[in-house]
Amino acid sequence: MQLSSCYLFQGLSEYQINQLINIGSEAPIQKDQWLYREGEDTQQIFVLQEGAVELLTTVDAIELPITILRSTGDCFGTSALVEPYTYSLSARAVEDGSVLAFKRVDLELLKKQDHEFGCIIQANLAKHFLERLKETRQELKIHFKTIFKSMHH
Amino acid sequence: MQLSSCYLFQGLSEYQINQLINIGSEAPIQKDQWLYREGEDTQQIFVLQEGAVELLTTVDAIELPITILRSTGDCFGTSALVEPYTYSLSARAVEDGSVLAFKRVDLELLKKQDHEFGCIIQANLAKHFLERLKETRQELKIHFKTIFKSMHH
Repeated sequence: MQLSSCYLFQGLSEYQINQLINIGSEAPIQKDQWLYREGEDTQQIFVLQEGAVELLTTVDAIELPITILRSTGDCFGTSALVEPYTYSLSARAVEDGSVLAFKRVDLELLKKQDHEFGCIIQANLAKHFLERLKETRQELKIHFKTIFKSMHH
Repeated sequence: MQLSSCYLFQGLSEYQINQLINIGSEAPIQKDQWLYREGEDTQQIFVLQEGAVELLTTVDAIELPITILRSTGDCFGTSALVEPYTYSLSARAVEDGSVLAFKRVDLELLKKQDHEFGCIIQANLAKHFLERLKETRQELKIHFKTIFKSMHH
């Protein structure tokens, strides 16, 4: 698998990618398995190898799907790397497959040993969260449009 | 003004804050003045000194307020620091006052000269965008709740 295809690891050197491979551990995932739930303390981040994983949130016990990840190298659980270190969504496998898991403590250690590694990851995270923020605001706009329309008819 | 009260600059050393002060320039703002518009290329980020600034977006030419900043040290325009370097919202003064403006090129230079400075800022940005993302998702949830309720009545 190309770890560098994951947005989080873009811009890392070959040496840094190899350091990452050393601390990753492969794990199988089974359809309907919860990898984590929204609000839990984050212990790991994940990179998809095979299968598919849905990210979702719940509103009054009703599930609200956010996205489905299907591509090798898609990463999730990355709010693990940002205070307050809790998962901002839930993740559930929707197909059998496998993931590469990285423990937060191991990543933190790498960041301490290699300042540049930490910097690149933080910059990638900031970019990613800003993109998601723009998308989510776009969705909100669509809702407002619907409200405006219903008010004018 | 305490620059360290701005979320973006938290964790910087006194020396780093002084470096920042050297590149900041004060500018007056007048009620109803646009500081920038959504989608424009970002040239500057701002820290509020006095007065009040509204951040907003537009939906079919209707303004949708996001927040009003009123505290000394509130910073805005920070999407200037993340690819694709465009403002994600519009900013308009709602009261007379003043801001401290930082040119993107000057900040980029500081980041190059002082790796740690860049790192701290990227980490603060990632944290900030994740917080805004969670808030925005929360607003979306409220909309969905309203829809669910109207479906059940």
